[in-house]
Amino acid sequence: MTAPTKSDIWRKDRDHLLHPYTDFSCFREEGSQVIEKAEGMYVTDQDGNRLLDGIAGLWCVNIGHGRKDMAEAIAAQVMDMQYYNPFGHSTNIPASELGAKLAALAPGDLNHVYYTCGGSTANDAAIRLVHYYFEMKGQHRKKKIISRDAGYHGATYVAASLTGIHGTKLGFDRIGEDFIHHVSAANMYAKPEGMSEDEFCDFLVDEFERRIHQLGPDNVAAFIAEPIMGAGGVLVAPKGYHKRMYDVCKAYDMLYIADEVVTAFGRLGEWFASEAVFGMTPDILVCAKGITSGYIPLGATMITSEIYDVIAHPQCEGGVFSMGLTYFGHPVACAAALKNMEIMESEGMLGNAKEVGPYLQETAKSLLNLPIVGDVRGSHLMMGIDLVADKKTKAPHGAGVSEAIFKKCLDRGVIVRPVGDRIVISPPIIINREECDMIVNAISESITEYLAEA
Amino acid sequence: MTAPTKSDIWRKDRDHLLHPYTDFSCFREEGSQVIEKAEGMYVTDQDGNRLLDGIAGLWCVNIGHGRKDMAEAIAAQVMDMQYYNPFGHSTNIPASELGAKLAALAPGDLNHVYYTCGGSTANDAAIRLVHYYFEMKGQHRKKKIISRDAGYHGATYVAASLTGIHGTKLGFDRIGEDFIHHVSAANMYAKPEGMSEDEFCDFLVDEFERRIHQLGPDNVAAFIAEPIMGAGGVLVAPKGYHKRMYDVCKAYDMLYIADEVVTAFGRLGEWFASEAVFGMTPDILVCAKGITSGYIPLGATMITSEIYDVIAHPQCEGGVFSMGLTYFGHPVACAAALKNMEIMESEGMLGNAKEVGPYLQETAKSLLNLPIVGDVRGSHLMMGIDLVADKKTKAPHGAGVSEAIFKKCLDRGVIVRPVGDRIVISPPIIINREECDMIVNAISESITEYLAEA
Repeated sequence: MTAPTKSDIWRKDRDHLLHPYTDFSCFREEGSQVIEKAEGMYVTDQDGNRLLDGIAGLWCVNIGHGRKDMAEAIAAQVMDMQYYNPFGHSTNIPASELGAKLAALAPGDLNHVYYTCGGSTANDAAIRLVHYYFEMKGQHRKKKIISRDAGYHGATYVAASLTGIHGTKLGFDRIGEDFIHHVSAANMYAKPEGMSEDEFCDFLVDEFERRIHQLGPDNVAAFIAEPIMGAGGVLVAPKGYHKRMYDVCKAYDMLYIADEVVTAFGRLGEWFASEAVFGMTPDILVCAKGITSGYIPLGATMITSEIYDVIAHPQCEGGVFSMGLTYFGHPVACAAALKNMEIMESEGMLGNAKEVGPYLQETAKSLLNLPIVGDVRGSHLMMGIDLVADKKTKAPHGAGVSEAIFKKCLDRGVIVRPVGDRIVISPPIIINREECDMIVNAISESITEYLAEA
Repeated sequence: MTAPTKSDIWRKDRDHLLHPYTDFSCFREEGSQVIEKAEGMYVTDQDGNRLLDGIAGLWCVNIGHGRKDMAEAIAAQVMDMQYYNPFGHSTNIPASELGAKLAALAPGDLNHVYYTCGGSTANDAAIRLVHYYFEMKGQHRKKKIISRDAGYHGATYVAASLTGIHGTKLGFDRIGEDFIHHVSAANMYAKPEGMSEDEFCDFLVDEFERRIHQLGPDNVAAFIAEPIMGAGGVLVAPKGYHKRMYDVCKAYDMLYIADEVVTAFGRLGEWFASEAVFGMTPDILVCAKGITSGYIPLGATMITSEIYDVIAHPQCEGGVFSMGLTYFGHPVACAAALKNMEIMESEGMLGNAKEVGPYLQETAKSLLNLPIVGDVRGSHLMMGIDLVADKKTKAPHGAGVSEAIFKKCLDRGVIVRPVGDRIVISPPIIINREECDMIVNAISESITEYLAEA
């Protein structure tokens, strides 16, 4: 890569933006990389470096970048009806059409949609809905939420409280601490030596049930989990885990919230992963990202008819359901989602993910031959690679290794994502085999080079 | 208005959407009004009724509906670079340009921008930033927030906790109750009989200071307030109130958060109202809505250089600022904001709001001649009308009167907003005098008809 140009844009960004996940030990000197163009599988920075986007923007640009048909559908909706309020019995055509489409594609009785602006607000809304639901049922104490270590659920205050990644908590308060509790991550790579997959699943399910008893079943309202943990390191649960956790929820009159912000809309080759991949239909399904492929911000919290029927009564004389964002069902966002899904259908993109996904999985496994690659795991177009100091002890490699590999991959024209001691791959679902090879080769070469320099 | 068509869209909406502020006593029968087209000052429903939008969608469509130049700017950005992640030292051109522009227009040292997807997430982020700021300063106990009765701050769990409107709380929990406290609304219409404006201001400031002492100055972190309360009923504070509340904040080392989601971007004839209208520069300024005129969801939390400088240090070795939404600085949203602001500038829209605003205020005052209109207040293009049973006691009229007036205005081709016992007017800032007359006449005729039928 050429040395970054210190442009006017670079300076304005450095001087005026408070970015997520900034490392302030170097930001004032380094500033940001300016991404200027994006098309298909590639983005281009201001210095003209064309980079293969191995992370789909941020787990979201599933159909690929810069599609003309998306631009046209978005512009057409702006001209037709760009916004009108969705409060108090008012709607628009794309919001209504999308609601029906989501309900048709979602498993089971997930028939009702509450729209938000992204994954954080959709998870935040899920918690508000759970509390409201039990309030309406007269179970006023049933409010506690069980989440998981290493779970990532977003960045509103409550979504951040649900999140179980230690590194994201430093310096932040956790106001939900009195009602949000965490159980162990379903981290197969960290399971005790000698414990089988089934035994590990037993352990996790038992821990969950013990925690419910400890908190009191009358106090525990819901469990929230990603089908595959994303930002926590692409952790795939032991076989049967989700269904068993769901069964425990049902035994204690709890709701199961599936956070499918990353897994829905094709990343695992399905519209939604919960039922199709994991054999379980949640009570609440949260999605975002891939719903519009990130073209326009949108999230959705889907609830079952059973939950809707409880909510769909006035809570008192003249009472209305007083919860909602200005941009609930934003027509332009919903039109983008409809076109995005139409494109996925007409171009067989779920099929591509189903076919190319296993190839990426297989190819990435070759990285295990490298001395610091401890684990390669994931499913379809969602892979995590653990970098370790010692394959036996599985001790993390540390010392900014993933950041170094990320930069070496950039030099090779490939974007991967460094997360702690891991590298994450989550490309657009239009990826082909050659591009999978490019990503895996870039990582392999970068690690080899890193080790040679060490 | 013609009777609503029970279309396919109408049915899908009724069957699949969980709308904000639904009245479930009638929703299943009535369903939603489907807004299909929008242009300039008007929206059109599926039955062909063309309606003057007296509420700018929901306080947001400031430049008017369906502008071709907005559609073109949005489509162009989609084609150029529709999304790439803003985490870990990455940026895009519109986010950077907009950050610099906001910093240039905002008063004082409000030089740094944290982007969100709307007002709720921007207020939610403000609270996280306040907590993080005091944590970084080592003031670990300084976390309590003082908000106001009748304040509206949004719909994330924490934003809803900040909100002080009683009717929005029914059935919902308030997890922030241990750290969010409310003082009285600056409601001039409800001030005790015989108390002067200055005395009422003294009362509110004293109450605030007493509350700080009660909670302990070392525990109180910030005050949050709208310059003019919006959803709470367009309440204009007594003269000098905001500056005095700000001075109290400074005396107790507290931050003042101005929630300008409604008041910024022209509603009061200025880019931002805090300094230009109320003579006070807040420590944190929250905006959304008018920033894109609602064309694409976007919010922004602006902080002073002093706050940024405290935040812009690693909180520990290798620590990063772990807070942010996927759609932080979304390029399409930021491009929409830039074009929106360019349109406001090139077409002199702030000037129009400054000129036509006082005319609307004056004209609306004529409604005071009606027997149930107790108060007409507001500023520029933000007006509230109190409907009372008795002008002397100021007792609210009740019995769904605002809902009835809303429907009668619809029959006259004009949209106003019913909020409790109030009617709110907040038109696009491109409104002319004739359209102001149409709105006021529709309200006047509707009230007269309502009284004749009673």
